[in-house]
Amino acid sequence: MPRRPLLIDIPALGAIDRTQGGIGRQLAEVLRSAIARGELTAGERLPSTRVLAQSLGVSRGTVTEAYEQLIAEGCLDAHPGASTRVVATLHEPSLAARRSSTGEADGMPALPESAAYYAAIAEQFAPLPSVPFSVAVPEGAVAMDDHWRRLSNRVRGSQVAAPSGYGAPGGLLCLREAIAEYLRKARAVCCGPENVIITEGTQQGLYLAARVLLSPGDAAWAEDPAYPGLTSVLEERGVKVQRIAVDGQGFDLVRAKEMCSTAKAAFVTPSHQYPMGMPMSMPRRLALIDWARKSGGWIVEDDYDSELRYAGQPFPAMQSLDSRRVIYLGTFSKVLAPSLRLGYVVVPDCLAKAFAGARALMGRGSPLTEQHVVAAYMREGYFETHIRRIRAIYAERRQALIDALQVQLPGLRIQPADQGMHIVVWLPDALTDVAVAKAASKAGLALRALSPMCSSNLTLSGLMLGFGGFTNKQLRDAVGRLRQVLEEGFQITSTGCSQVAK
Amino acid sequence: MPRRPLLIDIPALGAIDRTQGGIGRQLAEVLRSAIARGELTAGERLPSTRVLAQSLGVSRGTVTEAYEQLIAEGCLDAHPGASTRVVATLHEPSLAARRSSTGEADGMPALPESAAYYAAIAEQFAPLPSVPFSVAVPEGAVAMDDHWRRLSNRVRGSQVAAPSGYGAPGGLLCLREAIAEYLRKARAVCCGPENVIITEGTQQGLYLAARVLLSPGDAAWAEDPAYPGLTSVLEERGVKVQRIAVDGQGFDLVRAKEMCSTAKAAFVTPSHQYPMGMPMSMPRRLALIDWARKSGGWIVEDDYDSELRYAGQPFPAMQSLDSRRVIYLGTFSKVLAPSLRLGYVVVPDCLAKAFAGARALMGRGSPLTEQHVVAAYMREGYFETHIRRIRAIYAERRQALIDALQVQLPGLRIQPADQGMHIVVWLPDALTDVAVAKAASKAGLALRALSPMCSSNLTLSGLMLGFGGFTNKQLRDAVGRLRQVLEEGFQITSTGCSQVAK
Repeated sequence: MPRRPLLIDIPALGAIDRTQGGIGRQLAEVLRSAIARGELTAGERLPSTRVLAQSLGVSRGTVTEAYEQLIAEGCLDAHPGASTRVVATLHEPSLAARRSSTGEADGMPALPESAAYYAAIAEQFAPLPSVPFSVAVPEGAVAMDDHWRRLSNRVRGSQVAAPSGYGAPGGLLCLREAIAEYLRKARAVCCGPENVIITEGTQQGLYLAARVLLSPGDAAWAEDPAYPGLTSVLEERGVKVQRIAVDGQGFDLVRAKEMCSTAKAAFVTPSHQYPMGMPMSMPRRLALIDWARKSGGWIVEDDYDSELRYAGQPFPAMQSLDSRRVIYLGTFSKVLAPSLRLGYVVVPDCLAKAFAGARALMGRGSPLTEQHVVAAYMREGYFETHIRRIRAIYAERRQALIDALQVQLPGLRIQPADQGMHIVVWLPDALTDVAVAKAASKAGLALRALSPMCSSNLTLSGLMLGFGGFTNKQLRDAVGRLRQVLEEGFQITSTGCSQVAK
Repeated sequence: MPRRPLLIDIPALGAIDRTQGGIGRQLAEVLRSAIARGELTAGERLPSTRVLAQSLGVSRGTVTEAYEQLIAEGCLDAHPGASTRVVATLHEPSLAARRSSTGEADGMPALPESAAYYAAIAEQFAPLPSVPFSVAVPEGAVAMDDHWRRLSNRVRGSQVAAPSGYGAPGGLLCLREAIAEYLRKARAVCCGPENVIITEGTQQGLYLAARVLLSPGDAAWAEDPAYPGLTSVLEERGVKVQRIAVDGQGFDLVRAKEMCSTAKAAFVTPSHQYPMGMPMSMPRRLALIDWARKSGGWIVEDDYDSELRYAGQPFPAMQSLDSRRVIYLGTFSKVLAPSLRLGYVVVPDCLAKAFAGARALMGRGSPLTEQHVVAAYMREGYFETHIRRIRAIYAERRQALIDALQVQLPGLRIQPADQGMHIVVWLPDALTDVAVAKAASKAGLALRALSPMCSSNLTLSGLMLGFGGFTNKQLRDAVGRLRQVLEEGFQITSTGCSQVAK
């Protein structure tokens, strides 16, 4: 009786657990799976409800219920007086092919073109462990204090910040107001709440700017070296990126125009070049603003770390020179915590809706509750107090790190800079920064090498050392370990060094 | 003496407030601004520190300090024995041009091509007001209860969930574990935590899928009607979208292949078609899986609202039929709250890194603290209790809405469906759903019209009525108001209706 499956023809039935309830549900599941796996194929007749109920030792109603569910789903078909039959089935690969199909080399089509591209990007964003000299680790003394926790609980407890519906894609009005007020005062940024778009931080600000300001095939200038998250964003947008090597005055428009005369946007870090730290000089700023006005180009100003200045008077934001050509980016990742995933873009009136639309398309906007908390934290003055407090702590830690480097590793030149959460040290020419960072990582140190932030036209060998999240003692110890790494894996003299062959 | 500015030649100096401290800082600011605005131009000589100090009635040191700051910034230049001169200046438009430049029609270049595109998208995502029949308003009885608040405070108070550094772009492991366990049990989804990527919700899941699975120029199928956020995502990616009209069994592969034979992905809502509500039948599911296996195509399964089923047994997720060809999307927006901005994508092993990379590029990942809270909420069993609780409330509200419609508006046909947070009613042929929604909005009702969710090939006239966030009484009252709108603005009879000319 080849067309009449017996109980043993449906091995999946063995999976039914009679000690559990819901036999009807279990039966529907195993039959459905057996059909999906091709163990039961289209046209095949199932046992009658009576026979199957007997075999399973359950009531006939239980089997009828399962059959009816599968009939409703379109898996089975029944006509009065005829058997219940399987309607549809998968054209399954042979069992052998299926068994091997957990591996990758089973003749499956290649992955989508984009997948490999994005997988490579994932590497770039793998978070560094919280060990020296990782940047941006708000722990211990520099973490948000009890004010944050108390305020957070209070705001959350109020009706206004309870979990609720969708917000406006551009962000909560109360937070945009607080940010606009802060930026006007602290950075001379010319803006109202209508110009502020809440983001997940600088990375998202750059992503939005690339999408709204540029089309695939457009050209844009980026600094060299630069934050790798920026160059990835521009490449993903299909933008022709012209890297412009910075000098002591930062980004140079003259050089930029020589390299590429058709750029539609300049992505710059005027207050504190990333990663080197020099500010863009005023003549350079004015020249760039002038270019933007005349050409209709856009300036994207990443004002990262501007809150953390340790000496001298800060430049006001470039945005204050022309709020109609400059897109201004800021973040709470550095002064509060990266895990908040909150930052902002300040855009001209004419672009506010476009930035909000681009933000909505990729996820509808940031969570609301934490926006209420940060708004209250700013409104009630805790934010500025917090910045003053951590600035003092960071200044001390930064000095401790510089002192330790000068004592223990006098051969490394320190890049002069007055602000931020990291310092840059230059390695002697013969030393590859990537190799040093790799060796240091084995010794429990997290260092970012500068060369991967450079274009192929630029050769730099340096390391970024974050100091924010570590005590003076941790920093001194870590410098000691770095010295050990350099001495053991690399040969250093007071005048230079050469890499030891491994 | 045209080259020697007197005090009155620098009107900005009048802005210095002598009653405030920091005159030196104020002086630097006004001079910097005057240079930026072109009131002082390159080559122009400034008064000596002695003269200016006298004029301002401040110490000479104060002026020297301001000049030195501006020299450091590159705004001014000084040679021993010579005057201090302005170095750089903006090639400023004339004062008149500048004055008019706050308007838009001042000869500035056009906005970037993409800006208008994204601005139009912003309209689409403007949140509806929290009035009936807005979808997804977790308020009152269906809001998260005290367990959520207590747990949230407890988790936040613990060290592990305190604001901290960057997380892995794919999301917190503990949340991915909790989601994988839940999905295996509730939806037969075949996955481990390594397959789960945390998103901001379904919109972001669709955005990521479009980027990772497809390249510009690729073709893909989408249902007709469909969620507008999906079609926008595909169009933005440059994908050729072929819309496939659904019938009573949902998405039909036969029709789809006739319309476009080269599609690389199918975007479907198998458990509950959006917005109509019918499930995709098992034969259709199996056929689509078969297509994906043979062609190497991808199925993106948006399993929205699957937790909220009011009758019958749910279909298991399509992903359970083949976890290697199906990308599964879920969200906490419906069962917890939209404002959390948390959802997930379940992807095959081979795509996990690519999805994480694409997520990182657009903002580095979701905030961490709320991920800890949701993970604990799931782990400790509150999540399933919450779903059971709100399902019972929603079932009652849904019935109350249906009853009220049948009593007060018997002329409107209700689309049969067994799950979700909204129902669909069909308007008589002559009525335009957009016109009704607009008239209803003036009467304080939030209705979504179906026709904007259709391609140009499909003519539907229906309304989405969300019931989740409103009491039975609110719903009954709102149906009364809807009847009033239809009676006053449109002419309804028991057999049909015709739109009243306005």
